[in-house]
Amino acid sequence: MTIRVAVLGAAGRMGTTTAQAVRAAQGLELVAELDAGDDVTALAGVADVAVDFTVPTVTEGNVHALLDSGVHAVVGTTGWDDAALARVRTHLAQTPDLGVLVAPNFALSAVLAMRFAAIAAPLFASVEVVEMHHPRKVDAPSGTAVHTARGVAQARAAAGAPPMPDATELDPDGARGADVDGVHVHALRLEGLVAHEQVFLSNPGELLTIRTDSFDRSSFMPGVLLAIREIGTRPGLAVGLDAYLDL
Amino acid sequence: MTIRVAVLGAAGRMGTTTAQAVRAAQGLELVAELDAGDDVTALAGVADVAVDFTVPTVTEGNVHALLDSGVHAVVGTTGWDDAALARVRTHLAQTPDLGVLVAPNFALSAVLAMRFAAIAAPLFASVEVVEMHHPRKVDAPSGTAVHTARGVAQARAAAGAPPMPDATELDPDGARGADVDGVHVHALRLEGLVAHEQVFLSNPGELLTIRTDSFDRSSFMPGVLLAIREIGTRPGLAVGLDAYLDL
Amino acid sequence: MTIRVAVLGAAGRMGTTTAQAVRAAQGLELVAELDAGDDVTALAGVADVAVDFTVPTVTEGNVHALLDSGVHAVVGTTGWDDAALARVRTHLAQTPDLGVLVAPNFALSAVLAMRFAAIAAPLFASVEVVEMHHPRKVDAPSGTAVHTARGVAQARAAAGAPPMPDATELDPDGARGADVDGVHVHALRLEGLVAHEQVFLSNPGELLTIRTDSFDRSSFMPGVLLAIREIGTRPGLAVGLDAYLDL
Amino acid sequence: MTIRVAVLGAAGRMGTTTAQAVRAAQGLELVAELDAGDDVTALAGVADVAVDFTVPTVTEGNVHALLDSGVHAVVGTTGWDDAALARVRTHLAQTPDLGVLVAPNFALSAVLAMRFAAIAAPLFASVEVVEMHHPRKVDAPSGTAVHTARGVAQARAAAGAPPMPDATELDPDGARGADVDGVHVHALRLEGLVAHEQVFLSNPGELLTIRTDSFDRSSFMPGVLLAIREIGTRPGLAVGLDAYLDL
Repeated sequence: MTIRVAVLGAAGRMGTTTAQAVRAAQGLELVAELDAGDDVTALAGVADVAVDFTVPTVTEGNVHALLDSGVHAVVGTTGWDDAALARVRTHLAQTPDLGVLVAPNFALSAVLAMRFAAIAAPLFASVEVVEMHHPRKVDAPSGTAVHTARGVAQARAAAGAPPMPDATELDPDGARGADVDGVHVHALRLEGLVAHEQVFLSNPGELLTIRTDSFDRSSFMPGVLLAIREIGTRPGLAVGLDAYLDL
Repeated sequence: MTIRVAVLGAAGRMGTTTAQAVRAAQGLELVAELDAGDDVTALAGVADVAVDFTVPTVTEGNVHALLDSGVHAVVGTTGWDDAALARVRTHLAQTPDLGVLVAPNFALSAVLAMRFAAIAAPLFASVEVVEMHHPRKVDAPSGTAVHTARGVAQARAAAGAPPMPDATELDPDGARGADVDGVHVHALRLEGLVAHEQVFLSNPGELLTIRTDSFDRSSFMPGVLLAIREIGTRPGLAVGLDAYLDL
Repeated sequence: MTIRVAVLGAAGRMGTTTAQAVRAAQGLELVAELDAGDDVTALAGVADVAVDFTVPTVTEGNVHALLDSGVHAVVGTTGWDDAALARVRTHLAQTPDLGVLVAPNFALSAVLAMRFAAIAAPLFASVEVVEMHHPRKVDAPSGTAVHTARGVAQARAAAGAPPMPDATELDPDGARGADVDGVHVHALRLEGLVAHEQVFLSNPGELLTIRTDSFDRSSFMPGVLLAIREIGTRPGLAVGLDAYLDL
Repeated sequence: MTIRVAVLGAAGRMGTTTAQAVRAAQGLELVAELDAGDDVTALAGVADVAVDFTVPTVTEGNVHALLDSGVHAVVGTTGWDDAALARVRTHLAQTPDLGVLVAPNFALSAVLAMRFAAIAAPLFASVEVVEMHHPRKVDAPSGTAVHTARGVAQARAAAGAPPMPDATELDPDGARGADVDGVHVHALRLEGLVAHEQVFLSNPGELLTIRTDSFDRSSFMPGVLLAIREIGTRPGLAVGLDAYLDL
């Protein structure tokens, strides 16, 4: 059965790429492309799933309107805090058949790398994170790298892993990088790159490296399509694409 | 409570390294080092766990003698076939409190890499395996690489993943490497290396790389110690260290 | 002083990218974009340098017409054999101020990687080459990988380096890849990739890895711009961009 | 003709490894192993080349004694400053047939990586350095990484390369690492590793990575043996093994 898909924020870069990917995908039909000013409730009975790549100021309103209209919501827009997520959870209690996925990152390789790093973290003596991005990025380290480091730190704490060994006494210029919950994070800025991350995990005699390279926006599309196909069987609120990957 | 550990094959390279690691480990006590000719049943009431790094001709007999003596068995010796495993399973039915782990590879990074590759495989368009070993190795590709490729192939088949794209028409010298169940495997032989593997998984716009480097025998020890500590809570037969990692 | 640049094959993908890069570059002025049917000799007195990204059937004629018109020629078109190069060399003897550069690859990272591999090759016990390309490529291994392997083989032969150690006896499925003049070359085909190469050089206890990643056509532009700027000071025929890099 | 080799500091770790390597090498004969208290001048007429892996307090005295005894000196001991080097240069003026090589690093892969990075640096928009060492190291970044960054900075300054692009405004925890003469340097500390370095050089659309891994002390031996064999044809003072590599 074909899944009818609407794209919200269809004129933006992610929205445009999503609309193209939906058009090209088997079993999906692009039924609407909405932008600022368009009425989301018009999707009632027209779309099964809506993908929201809009802006932080309107995305929460969109999701509530979609739930009122009986449409599942796949959300890639940033800006969701715990209070906003709680309000969606409350709303979903009244629409038990509908699903909402709020995901900060749809790149499968990045999502898997974070998850694998957390799984492996308690089994290794040392873990460090290196992220590489284009030099127009204004903040360091990247949100993905911070998220990765926190996942590593939480997994180690839960398993009772000891602190990592580090005899550094002399580091006048800060070469050891940022300390995120006890995990060192390093940020490189390199012309021509897009978004890349390496996680190094080591024990005596062995090194495990998990590397992810995102070359362009198309890297998000396999994850977006997977979410569109899965959300009909995943009622309720999910945060993070890994919730749909059954890892 | 201290776990009392015996090492079988204690004069061999792996046995020697294991004995050292047990001596240095918190919560473990090395109570016996046995070699050819020593009586395994003497371990009854003396050892809680025995680690067998002997030879294919005696390892099965050792395991049955350990079970008769009430000792858990962690086995790193190769040469186990399905029939031998079945005989251990039968024996274990009579000693329901005891555990036997038969593991071809105790390097955590290698075990995790294989498992992660299998988990991720159905989510990517392309997967290839590159292994790198010292040039004294007589066979190619490595057993670990074949095992990795088969795990990838099985996971893709189970998920209904399509064949990987490959338009190669002209490859007169075999640069595309070995085809193992539809997964291409490449073997490098490089002086100074020990045992290394890379798995490449890619989609449009993204690449996930899982790399494992084993620099020396000490890389097996975290896995051996983990098995010694866990086996008391894992009655029955387990094959492969990943069974103890709850991935 | 501004360098006046013409692009031949301006409607093609490489020509279009080159025209954009010239327009954006400091000290360069795009004065002409020519395509099939346009008269190359019209560039006399108009352009200082012409960049030829046309097709094998017309590129040699273009170069001779450019020399007759007093214009330096930077050539990225393939299809040049020794006889064609000899004819250009003969022509250049009559125009001693003009330069011609015929280069199969303008990606600086790829050109440098090949050169560095050749410099380092005699100092290491083992050298192998791994190339990774998109799966629509019909031949394996890539021309760049073959070129790299041949450079390694020639440098080792010139230095009297011994054959590389390799005890492989059993390789039923060809995992060891292609043998190019004694250097093993491995080809991977991965969705989403463009053109990538790794050269591994090792000795007891050490490994040197040279890796080059080309993400898109823009990777050729720094090399093309460098050639445009240098050719005025490089009279005569040069083959390969490394001739201009003074390595 | 066999080269007669003496090792100074023969009881130390590097001295022991060197003596073994000399014994195993074709065309070399180990004629003396000296330690604290032994008379260096006794090597006159006995040794052709001496390798000094002693300590900073005695190495300069050793070199002058070797020159007085007509013996070439390959020096791996640290602690040489410009004044000490100048005194050796003055001494060498009186012994024009003798050579002295003072080298902080004999690992060929590390020496080549530094040199290649400097050659390539002016041709790329961005360059960053990542070093990885065992966690017992007390200083960060490593001397090799600082040396690499300085070589990159000098080469870029000499070529008039512009500053690297970097829009970072917000980096509260220092994830961007150390700034060494305008080149960012990142230090990782990982259990089980020895000495590793990666240099990343990028342009729009391309990335060149030069990586060097030293797994153990044996990685220095190919460089030491090369120096022993070459020093007879290299009269005068050389600083850094790259002086002998004719790069």
